[in-house]
Amino acid sequence: MRIQTTSDGFDLILDGTVLLRHRSDAPCLFAGRGDARIAMYRGNFDIEDYVIERVPLRHAVVSGPEIAFSEAPGQPVRLVLRVAGDDRNGSVAFRADDGAINRIWLRIEAERGEHVWGGGEQMSYFDMRGRRFPLWTSEPGVGRDKTTEITFKADVTGRAGGDYWNTNYPQPTYLSSRRYALHVETTAYSAFDFRRDGFHEIEIWAVPERVEFTARPTFVALVEAMSDRFGRQPPLPEWVYGGAIVGLKDGARSFERLERIVAAGAKVSGLWCEDWVGLRHTSFGARLFWDWKANEDRYPGLRQRMAELEDRGIRFLGYVNPYLAVDGSLFPEADAAGYFAKDENGNTALVDFGEFECGVVDFTNPEAAAWFAERVIGQNMLDYGLSGWMADFGEYLPIDVTLANGVDARLMHNAWPTLWAEVNARAVASRGKTGEVLFFMRAGFTGVQRYCPLLWAGDQSVDFTRHDGLVTVICGALSSGLLGNAYHHSDIGGYTSLFGNVRTAELIVRWAEMGAFTPVMRTHEGNRPRDNLQIDEDPEVLRHFARMTQVYVHLVPYLKSLVAEASSRGLPVQRPLFLHFEDDARTYAIQDAYLYGPDLLVAPVWQAGRTEWTTYLPKGAEWVHVWSGETYAGGSDVTVAAPFGQPPVFHRAGSRFGDLFAGLRNL
Amino acid sequence: MRIQTTSDGFDLILDGTVLLRHRSDAPCLFAGRGDARIAMYRGNFDIEDYVIERVPLRHAVVSGPEIAFSEAPGQPVRLVLRVAGDDRNGSVAFRADDGAINRIWLRIEAERGEHVWGGGEQMSYFDMRGRRFPLWTSEPGVGRDKTTEITFKADVTGRAGGDYWNTNYPQPTYLSSRRYALHVETTAYSAFDFRRDGFHEIEIWAVPERVEFTARPTFVALVEAMSDRFGRQPPLPEWVYGGAIVGLKDGARSFERLERIVAAGAKVSGLWCEDWVGLRHTSFGARLFWDWKANEDRYPGLRQRMAELEDRGIRFLGYVNPYLAVDGSLFPEADAAGYFAKDENGNTALVDFGEFECGVVDFTNPEAAAWFAERVIGQNMLDYGLSGWMADFGEYLPIDVTLANGVDARLMHNAWPTLWAEVNARAVASRGKTGEVLFFMRAGFTGVQRYCPLLWAGDQSVDFTRHDGLVTVICGALSSGLLGNAYHHSDIGGYTSLFGNVRTAELIVRWAEMGAFTPVMRTHEGNRPRDNLQIDEDPEVLRHFARMTQVYVHLVPYLKSLVAEASSRGLPVQRPLFLHFEDDARTYAIQDAYLYGPDLLVAPVWQAGRTEWTTYLPKGAEWVHVWSGETYAGGSDVTVAAPFGQPPVFHRAGSRFGDLFAGLRNL
Repeated sequence: MRIQTTSDGFDLILDGTVLLRHRSDAPCLFAGRGDARIAMYRGNFDIEDYVIERVPLRHAVVSGPEIAFSEAPGQPVRLVLRVAGDDRNGSVAFRADDGAINRIWLRIEAERGEHVWGGGEQMSYFDMRGRRFPLWTSEPGVGRDKTTEITFKADVTGRAGGDYWNTNYPQPTYLSSRRYALHVETTAYSAFDFRRDGFHEIEIWAVPERVEFTARPTFVALVEAMSDRFGRQPPLPEWVYGGAIVGLKDGARSFERLERIVAAGAKVSGLWCEDWVGLRHTSFGARLFWDWKANEDRYPGLRQRMAELEDRGIRFLGYVNPYLAVDGSLFPEADAAGYFAKDENGNTALVDFGEFECGVVDFTNPEAAAWFAERVIGQNMLDYGLSGWMADFGEYLPIDVTLANGVDARLMHNAWPTLWAEVNARAVASRGKTGEVLFFMRAGFTGVQRYCPLLWAGDQSVDFTRHDGLVTVICGALSSGLLGNAYHHSDIGGYTSLFGNVRTAELIVRWAEMGAFTPVMRTHEGNRPRDNLQIDEDPEVLRHFARMTQVYVHLVPYLKSLVAEASSRGLPVQRPLFLHFEDDARTYAIQDAYLYGPDLLVAPVWQAGRTEWTTYLPKGAEWVHVWSGETYAGGSDVTVAAPFGQPPVFHRAGSRFGDLFAGLRNL
Repeated sequence: MRIQTTSDGFDLILDGTVLLRHRSDAPCLFAGRGDARIAMYRGNFDIEDYVIERVPLRHAVVSGPEIAFSEAPGQPVRLVLRVAGDDRNGSVAFRADDGAINRIWLRIEAERGEHVWGGGEQMSYFDMRGRRFPLWTSEPGVGRDKTTEITFKADVTGRAGGDYWNTNYPQPTYLSSRRYALHVETTAYSAFDFRRDGFHEIEIWAVPERVEFTARPTFVALVEAMSDRFGRQPPLPEWVYGGAIVGLKDGARSFERLERIVAAGAKVSGLWCEDWVGLRHTSFGARLFWDWKANEDRYPGLRQRMAELEDRGIRFLGYVNPYLAVDGSLFPEADAAGYFAKDENGNTALVDFGEFECGVVDFTNPEAAAWFAERVIGQNMLDYGLSGWMADFGEYLPIDVTLANGVDARLMHNAWPTLWAEVNARAVASRGKTGEVLFFMRAGFTGVQRYCPLLWAGDQSVDFTRHDGLVTVICGALSSGLLGNAYHHSDIGGYTSLFGNVRTAELIVRWAEMGAFTPVMRTHEGNRPRDNLQIDEDPEVLRHFARMTQVYVHLVPYLKSLVAEASSRGLPVQRPLFLHFEDDARTYAIQDAYLYGPDLLVAPVWQAGRTEWTTYLPKGAEWVHVWSGETYAGGSDVTVAAPFGQPPVFHRAGSRFGDLFAGLRNL
């Protein structure tokens, strides 16, 4: 990382790549003040910023590693940037002498034709060029497309429609096709604007600690560097390889249904019952009871059942989130200890979740975090015998609560998912079960990589839509994978059924086909189980699902090699095509197909009514269609038959797993 | 208007009212640069601004009447404001030495509890406090409420849904309850932001010529001053008092239908046939043929018919707009003379109106404007015998055309409605028919007052909705009336029928009841006549309409007194309650009732299914319910019966027109 001064400014260069280009008539840095209005409605946010000042800092004085910015010669210095690092890893630390600054805009040099990826887990657009991405953890939205009826209805009834950029897991980090990565070290609201030809604009609602730059000669090396930077996950538990995790929330009936699923030939590694805590009945329907301990009224003899299942290689998983219902048993305990976030009057802040209220455990208080890890997760979940759970939420920290660490909740909001992940990871570690217990999260932010062993793609609608259906899961896996999240999976069949939108058998079938080619295969009954088809309600669907679990298990030797690669190098299991074909620019924007490790290319059918499917095969390899055995040269689109049960999957000719892949034809 | 300097800034004071309060830590002026993206879709605009710089001009140096603003002491002067005027009329002229400035933000001192009105013709909110109002002439939108299905569908199918601030007639002028008015002399895009407690923020996408301030001791005097400033309309033509103008567009059948309407007892002053130019058949249905001359295929023997009608006191009216269809007879004539706006290559710019294209007559070219006034309006319309017309459009100037005067079309876009009005007014004046020929416009901008004799409220949906139905017409009349537009009226029955939304009999009935208490009563068949009920298709509707025309005619002596008042003082015929009751603050935000002159209070029923109606009667007068004769003290809400035919109308006790008003009971 070096600063090259010019007659009228400077260039900041990392390994030959110009990252900042500052001239007095084209400054790279703007500072100012904003006054944001932020309203939360159950995890959906209306955010509007009133920019009071946005002042170009035209005058830059370089002295050694420091660059002092002011509006003009002779004017006070507003910001000082301190450059550090070598040719591979650079950083620019920010220091403001002016406490009034709460908005920063930094322009990064860009090229026409450049591609950018990342931003956390993005569900709509993998290649982010051409669009602006606010980075603020929230509900992802229902529909996520302002031109659809579902989005409109979700917006009108609950401000919940969302848009292309809404995500549970934002992260102010991107990779560029110019072979560098940029990361902003901040938890403030930020936005990446990739709409300009000549620059990317990074907007941050605080003076950030620093901006980090990473340069590597290849995309693979860049992704490895991201994993080194943000943290690596433990390998998947061995038990997961036994088959799918079946999600049922039917009380004791769940066990009977599980038996029928197993009897149909499904390979099952886990039974996941989010209703293990019991139910609360509201006018919206049955909700979980947010008091995190087993409910043996709903699940009689649960410990016995769990032990019996474990003997057969089937683990039991539950559910938890960071809220405690006021009418539960844990609330008074936490409240007495002062573990909840406070409202403006210093009382316990209560958040409305729809006919019930909860306290928010204040994870900035180390004692509260330790209590939740030990008392709730440790004793009530791990000691009870759970092998995993959905660690739900993390996006809902209200911006008007007071926290123990004294930091503005607006600055802690984005940090919350990582704190929540850490609480879970510490609890697991406290029992020595890291790598054996599997929890999965939808929320994330910088550093979640270090704590969360498995992402799940959040709450897709039960449909094939472009912005909220099956295909969005791929985008989520690819974007988050580049930032060091090796493991990703989704709800087979989708989750959200609203406004009459219900699952078809075809949707479950296509989703299961994709799920077999992800590191963890898991089903979900969805938000309205009784209105929606379940995997065990249609013999054809169940037969197909069972076969796909066999595909998953058949691929375990290969999957284990990918897990080993994730552990040693930080490479994600699901990878964008360009990761291994970086000279083929046609791969740069592909977001509906992925490499499942280096040797398999998976192009899930994500539209209804299709019997064949067209996908691009990268140049530089020969590709064997796994179901027909037919070989294709890379470098062009190919169309293959794609009947139910034969998702478009290709393996590299010459793979050392060639025989294993060929064996898929006999399943 | 005086500047009072302080240790750290200045106050600008008009007649004791502080308008600008500048301190170095709370500057009143910001300057900068923006880069707007403006996309037009048939008169609907998507506008997004990228604010590159917004720099507070903290340092102000007052010398005599000039104030020089810079960022800091010793820095270059960015803007110079020159203050002029007396205690009643002040102005602040702007001068920028820096040509790069294309955004100005000016903060006007505001008070908690202050009300503001104006902004041109606003359809949703009369009191603008608490909201932001972009001021850019456009289609008003269909639905205009992002929570309704109609708005959603209009947005999705044609980006045409609109929002609360969209209007055909914006004007950067407002009146404050602090008894002053502010006007920005500019045609650039601007926005009034009334959302802050301590200041109003005026945003202008150019350095404006000046900002004008007017102070008067009373609201009436302030409104008179606006009329003096912006221009006064000629009195209504005498023939209008004969009854309603009936809108039919049924070719020769229009005459037969008119006879049946007259036979039913309707008083009729005009027959308005917008299809007088003939039709074009498109896949959207029948459209008018945009070549402005009589079509005697569709209206055989039209001049004879017109003469016969005129003998009976019924005038004939037509339709015109500023476009010429490429396949019409006038296009080649204008094209050969070079009268059209040009595209980027210097060729005639063609605008797509849906299966046909048009040239835009360039009214910045004095020859082109004169040609349109003489050749089109003068010869084809006035000499042919028309007594009036809808002068449609004016909002559609594309922002990417090249104009004869060399000014950026983005700066001429807002100016267009006034240029269009001027062309019409000049044509009328050329035949000596000012005050006898009546044209009416929906588009407007600063100065349209001088040329346009009558506003019409644009294209309401055929419903009772809050943001696009009957009630919006009142808001339009009141807001535009404060700015010197004395005459306002609307399409009885509404206009826009889309997505299955069709007229009910009740809607026509309630709209006709309101129309009888406006200066001009006119019906419209709507955009889809065959799908919607017409006034002559239901005997009850026709009977009711006929009676309402009798009410209108009965009130003519009173209306004439209002017209005289408009001519002499510039007071609008329809007035907000506060205009005559300025000490009663409860009247300040009322927008669903109005004073029809000083002595009548009209509270139209604007919701469906109502048999009674509640309205507020201002303090300081006694009010007589015209249908029952019952008297009410002012200062509280009253509820009266409101059956069809008895719109809630009250007259002041003691009015010199008391006998006339009492006579309404005998109709």
